[in-house]
Amino acid sequence: MAKWLNGSCLKNDVVISSRIRLARNLEDVRFPQDMTMEESKKVTDEILDAVKEWKSDKYEFHKIGDLSSLERRVLIEEHLISPSLIESPDKSSFLLRNDEKVTIMINEEDHLRVQILSSGLNLENDWNELNQIDDMLEDRLDYAFSDKFGYLTACPTNVGTGIRASVMIHLPCLVLTGYINNTLQAVNQIGLTTRGLYGEGTEALGNVFQISNQVTLGETEEEIIQKLNNVILQITEKEKDIRNKLLEVRRHEMEDRVFRSLGLLKYARIMSSRESMKLFSDVKMGIEMGILKDMNSNTIDSLMILTQPASLQKYFSKDLIPEERDIKRAELIREKL
Amino acid sequence: MAKWLNGSCLKNDVVISSRIRLARNLEDVRFPQDMTMEESKKVTDEILDAVKEWKSDKYEFHKIGDLSSLERRVLIEEHLISPSLIESPDKSSFLLRNDEKVTIMINEEDHLRVQILSSGLNLENDWNELNQIDDMLEDRLDYAFSDKFGYLTACPTNVGTGIRASVMIHLPCLVLTGYINNTLQAVNQIGLTTRGLYGEGTEALGNVFQISNQVTLGETEEEIIQKLNNVILQITEKEKDIRNKLLEVRRHEMEDRVFRSLGLLKYARIMSSRESMKLFSDVKMGIEMGILKDMNSNTIDSLMILTQPASLQKYFSKDLIPEERDIKRAELIREKL
Repeated sequence: MAKWLNGSCLKNDVVISSRIRLARNLEDVRFPQDMTMEESKKVTDEILDAVKEWKSDKYEFHKIGDLSSLERRVLIEEHLISPSLIESPDKSSFLLRNDEKVTIMINEEDHLRVQILSSGLNLENDWNELNQIDDMLEDRLDYAFSDKFGYLTACPTNVGTGIRASVMIHLPCLVLTGYINNTLQAVNQIGLTTRGLYGEGTEALGNVFQISNQVTLGETEEEIIQKLNNVILQITEKEKDIRNKLLEVRRHEMEDRVFRSLGLLKYARIMSSRESMKLFSDVKMGIEMGILKDMNSNTIDSLMILTQPASLQKYFSKDLIPEERDIKRAELIREKL
Repeated sequence: MAKWLNGSCLKNDVVISSRIRLARNLEDVRFPQDMTMEESKKVTDEILDAVKEWKSDKYEFHKIGDLSSLERRVLIEEHLISPSLIESPDKSSFLLRNDEKVTIMINEEDHLRVQILSSGLNLENDWNELNQIDDMLEDRLDYAFSDKFGYLTACPTNVGTGIRASVMIHLPCLVLTGYINNTLQAVNQIGLTTRGLYGEGTEALGNVFQISNQVTLGETEEEIIQKLNNVILQITEKEKDIRNKLLEVRRHEMEDRVFRSLGLLKYARIMSSRESMKLFSDVKMGIEMGILKDMNSNTIDSLMILTQPASLQKYFSKDLIPEERDIKRAELIREKL
């Protein structure tokens, strides 16, 4: 189980996780997509030196090139690194804090991407922590910064604060009742953006949506965090309201749906990733609605990650073709439930 | 559980039950559809007297008019009486043998319908037993009989031997592979007929087919029984062959199908009759194919009956509207599995 899932944050049932990352670049070095090997080494060394000077936190350093393809994909599935980080394996690396909550990515799309990850909704505390890390790094590094634009970044969508805060939120009852469309529309209208579980262009498998800020320019970091946080609290409220109403007027159907999904998870012998996400969603909802007692929502959150292709192969310590994966996925789920 | 399901006959997995019935009428009394109340009493008394003279078997006598609507429907669902028997409740009655294997129906479509019912394939033994009962009755009653046509019956389709032998057979793998169509066609071509679980015009729910003789004229009873028996053995063989092949080449899919259905039966909170029949079919197949150990096919056979609307209401001792039935059906299934 990814360590960050055990986070001791205030638990918001509907929110699976929150994440904030900052994009930073060193002055007078080309952005990663244009840099030479030499430049990439220079950037890496400077960042490593900067981090080394703190005594408080313990980080482990990994070069992408030293990791197997499977290990790289597992880290992505666990949300510990971003998919872009593995695109130039000879230049990219990362520092992972012991508790797996903080990752400092080197030579991703920008020279530096620092992310902080929590289970549940924890944006404000996480921002304070990330801000301190950023300050410590900034004391020791020369960032590319413009008085007019703020922090400069490889992609103009990140210019300014360089912040992206995003929340993974599980909205089965908004989906069930169709309210999700209005909700997502409203979210987009106020400058936030929604995506699926694994970033841009991916579907909202298992009724999990990723909601994040679109704008990085013209608002302070605190305003961005505050706005996202408020929206998430409102959506959470709405989802919970609907859950309560459904429990009142359609209890049997809700119970049936939840128990059937649990039954399938406990008994199936072949299970696709797509189907498992749907069933996990039902069971997670059932736990949170009090339909399923003696089960922990964390088990499902971690299964959502553990049953992804790479994590699954790591768990069984062998390469699996897709057909085998579906069989092993079913096996793993039965074992864990 | 209907007692006849506990039959000690040779068990043929694929065959659920076999049934033979004889249609007979008393001479010089109009057929039931045209008879007066007085005539119906006369017929009833004569038959009761005839039965009373044997000492060997114990029968219980019931007038349809004395039974509640629920009790009547339960008897039909258990295949102990025919649906036609309850159409004129003031004229009709039946004698049920203690072991529930033999029913003597009075004033159904004919004055007398004697049926014998077994779990599994048991046509030849049952025919011998039924033939003896028929002889005992014939010694004591004057049957309407023509030297040219044989036994006369209310409906010309029964004229001659008055025999209908039918077998309920469970053919999930013939259905799964599509061979069922050819099979049923062949069955029809040799003068046998196929219907669903509860007689003419009903669907083959749960992959259960009823195969019976069409012709009652021009063949002896023994020939009719022999032919049906041979056809059933051939179909059974074919079904078993396909089961074995599927186990070889698609084991995982078969296991997945069986276990998923078991999971749904064990976990669902709402279960329609139609869905439950489909799931029972899968589980029964799984037991017989050795996929599910430690489960008994009889449990499923009896659940197939017990979850029918009337039997379900009898079990819970109360009237249930369809929505409640689906909830109670799910409850009963969870309890029994």
